[in-house]
Amino acid sequence: MSSVQELFGSGLRVVNVGLPEFALPLQDKGVPVTTLDWRPPAQGDPSLGRALADLVGHPQIAAANATAIGRLLDTRPMLVDVRPAEEVLPELAADRLLLHAGPPVDWEAMCGPMRAAVAGAALLEGWADTPEAAERLAAGGGIMFSPCHDHGAVGPMAGIISASMPVMVVEDAGSGRRAYSNLNEGQGRCLRYGALGEDVMSRLRWMQTRLGPSLSAALRSLAERVDLRSIIAQALQMGDECHSRNVAGSSLLTRQLAAALARQDALGGVEALEFLRDNNYWFLNFAMAASKLATAAAHGVPGSTVVTAMARNGTEFGIRVSGIGDRWFTAPSPVPEGLYFPGYSAADANPDIGDSAIAETNGLGGFALAGAPAIVGFVGGTPAEGQQITEDMGTITVARHREYQLPALDFAGAPVGIDVRAVVDSGLEPVITTGISHRRAGIGQIGAGITAAPMACFLAALAAFEVPADRPETG
Amino acid sequence: MSSVQELFGSGLRVVNVGLPEFALPLQDKGVPVTTLDWRPPAQGDPSLGRALADLVGHPQIAAANATAIGRLLDTRPMLVDVRPAEEVLPELAADRLLLHAGPPVDWEAMCGPMRAAVAGAALLEGWADTPEAAERLAAGGGIMFSPCHDHGAVGPMAGIISASMPVMVVEDAGSGRRAYSNLNEGQGRCLRYGALGEDVMSRLRWMQTRLGPSLSAALRSLAERVDLRSIIAQALQMGDECHSRNVAGSSLLTRQLAAALARQDALGGVEALEFLRDNNYWFLNFAMAASKLATAAAHGVPGSTVVTAMARNGTEFGIRVSGIGDRWFTAPSPVPEGLYFPGYSAADANPDIGDSAIAETNGLGGFALAGAPAIVGFVGGTPAEGQQITEDMGTITVARHREYQLPALDFAGAPVGIDVRAVVDSGLEPVITTGISHRRAGIGQIGAGITAAPMACFLAALAAFEVPADRPETG
Repeated sequence: MSSVQELFGSGLRVVNVGLPEFALPLQDKGVPVTTLDWRPPAQGDPSLGRALADLVGHPQIAAANATAIGRLLDTRPMLVDVRPAEEVLPELAADRLLLHAGPPVDWEAMCGPMRAAVAGAALLEGWADTPEAAERLAAGGGIMFSPCHDHGAVGPMAGIISASMPVMVVEDAGSGRRAYSNLNEGQGRCLRYGALGEDVMSRLRWMQTRLGPSLSAALRSLAERVDLRSIIAQALQMGDECHSRNVAGSSLLTRQLAAALARQDALGGVEALEFLRDNNYWFLNFAMAASKLATAAAHGVPGSTVVTAMARNGTEFGIRVSGIGDRWFTAPSPVPEGLYFPGYSAADANPDIGDSAIAETNGLGGFALAGAPAIVGFVGGTPAEGQQITEDMGTITVARHREYQLPALDFAGAPVGIDVRAVVDSGLEPVITTGISHRRAGIGQIGAGITAAPMACFLAALAAFEVPADRPETG
Repeated sequence: MSSVQELFGSGLRVVNVGLPEFALPLQDKGVPVTTLDWRPPAQGDPSLGRALADLVGHPQIAAANATAIGRLLDTRPMLVDVRPAEEVLPELAADRLLLHAGPPVDWEAMCGPMRAAVAGAALLEGWADTPEAAERLAAGGGIMFSPCHDHGAVGPMAGIISASMPVMVVEDAGSGRRAYSNLNEGQGRCLRYGALGEDVMSRLRWMQTRLGPSLSAALRSLAERVDLRSIIAQALQMGDECHSRNVAGSSLLTRQLAAALARQDALGGVEALEFLRDNNYWFLNFAMAASKLATAAAHGVPGSTVVTAMARNGTEFGIRVSGIGDRWFTAPSPVPEGLYFPGYSAADANPDIGDSAIAETNGLGGFALAGAPAIVGFVGGTPAEGQQITEDMGTITVARHREYQLPALDFAGAPVGIDVRAVVDSGLEPVITTGISHRRAGIGQIGAGITAAPMACFLAALAAFEVPADRPETG
């Protein structure tokens, strides 16, 4: 299910497990066969199949999922500020702590690009003078690691956030809850892809000293807060799926902030506008923070089977489920399939990495592929195939997004709220649009493509799910 | 053919002339009838029908049209400067001359909104102190009028360009040829819609003194010229059709100019960025100037039946044809059908007005409707109906645009190069997306919708068309 050939090449919507072989002898004998889009539920595991049968149609789960998705849809992510990470996440100031993408991972298990990004962050913070010294420090236990997700944050690719890096502050207009993400470095050689070098480091220092402060001053000067849900909704009508394509969102946000940034020339605002002119990925991190805020609202509803996080550390792919608490259900991270820059191939690719799949958890990215035909074309597909993927994702989600509408589907809402039961029942893995890092430290991005969340995560989550005991009436 | 109901409501792609009445009695008698998408060529005029039969398939016309469309497609419109109109069109400085939209029209025949715009321009130039005095001046012959199109220029709606108004200078990268348009005032109460008042006048003065000079300085400071064809091509992939929807083009162009404008704060660059933040129509005039430059390149090819201008002065609709010189073929301008702002109806609407149909002449607007589902939805249609209109326009054009690709049609090029023969032969009138002005002077925009170019213009042009005599070989 996770290869581009299977998604786009064969014409099959679903990989049938077992059925074709079953049907062929019948067809040979002239028996008319209607090929059903069906496979054994729960991947053929009898005990899981029985559990699934109990859970599908369970009224308590339906009610819990309605609560969870209602909270997700009611979230109104407003961009309120940009601050040094340690100001809003003080735990980063106390220790030599780095946040990283995906489920928990220690130095020994970290992939090449994440190790490189750790080294770069250690240089930035002054914990080491060379990448080699930084690696020795990390290997000796001198750096602590924690998932971004455990701090209300998300970061694309390696997702390393250190104390002095500027992070955006995104606040729910209703509850005041907050989520954070780092700022996007652009394309090409970037720390998040595991690139290292003076070019990468000098850009990170400029982001600390000029980009962050000028953005902060510009945002604080606005008469109205920036409504990220509105920008995402507009961008979806302009060819973005807000994960691998962000040109519309980046242009809309830049246009909205341009005058305010221009007034902060002394702090770096005009330099910032030059940077934003050329960064077509700029909006990605805003879409991610908005998605983290929305999915966090859906988390922790007892009895809900809605997925509230999908994230990859480059070694493992992990998911969290609303009604199962903060436990990660993990599986080896797949290698994305896609198009590679000249000179690179799948053999060079790191397994899928980054918190950016929070976009798909929020109805964006692969789930909104119908809105981004250029992304589908990039990997050799047609707009119709992108629309089909969005429709397929509609069969494993509990709702359609009210604000995130897709013109190519007659303005239907993007499918949102992945239901663990439906993923296991249908065998359809959530589709994710993604960038591809070189597997070796220090090189960076080598391509982009489409991948899917591993079924094993959903099987494990379903096995661990329990319908909560009815609460006694208190009235 | 020109009503929204016929375009979107009936399910008919083409209004059959005569055929339904012909078919009904047969159907009553049980005769199976296949309704053909056919009508008598040349609208039933026998002599024109014979002329059309001679012209369709004529090899000399095919060659001439290939030459014309090749020149159109090879045009590379670069935005090079913004200047006071009289600097680049010195004829505006000499006399009390105003340029206006559409084919020639004198004061007596001018519609209400154009008269109001004339009065506003006279106030701006200091020719009169009150709108009433300006009207007396015009009525007494004290103001000269000339179509924008005769000066290499285009203006939306009333399209009034006076000596001191800033105009953009768009230059073909290959030939150095130039085209001009005024700058867009935004939405709501604007001179181009015939609104008058201190709000309208003070914005026009600000555009003269701050917007124009800061844009000029910003454009001159750029290391690379702004490639309008590239922005149009991107905008078509982002939901714009570059006539009635311009949010993508406006955002892309603003983002590209933001840093350069920010550096011109003393001249008004930061105020300009504030203005651009809120003007979703900003890019329209750039798309129009780029379209004028491209269609002008296609003009004047002997033997070509390609339409090189469609324009309305609010009284008459006019077209020009490449192989017939500068003569306008006119018909009464139709009243657009569409959606009206609260409190207004079709009874208040002025007939269709503006040079903006140069967009359709260049493959944009109604011809690119497949790329702008939001526009179709605005008048009650579906994305599929917008795609059908683009496909229909493909039957009356000679080419598909190489750069202007439409994702919803699997990245097929927008149909471009309206062929007078095909319009008459098919009975399909070119579809135009448009704004709607109040018919009375001084009020402004009251709605937006979709209309069509009157068949009578094309019938008249076809009747006047002559295949040039073969040139003697000179070798």
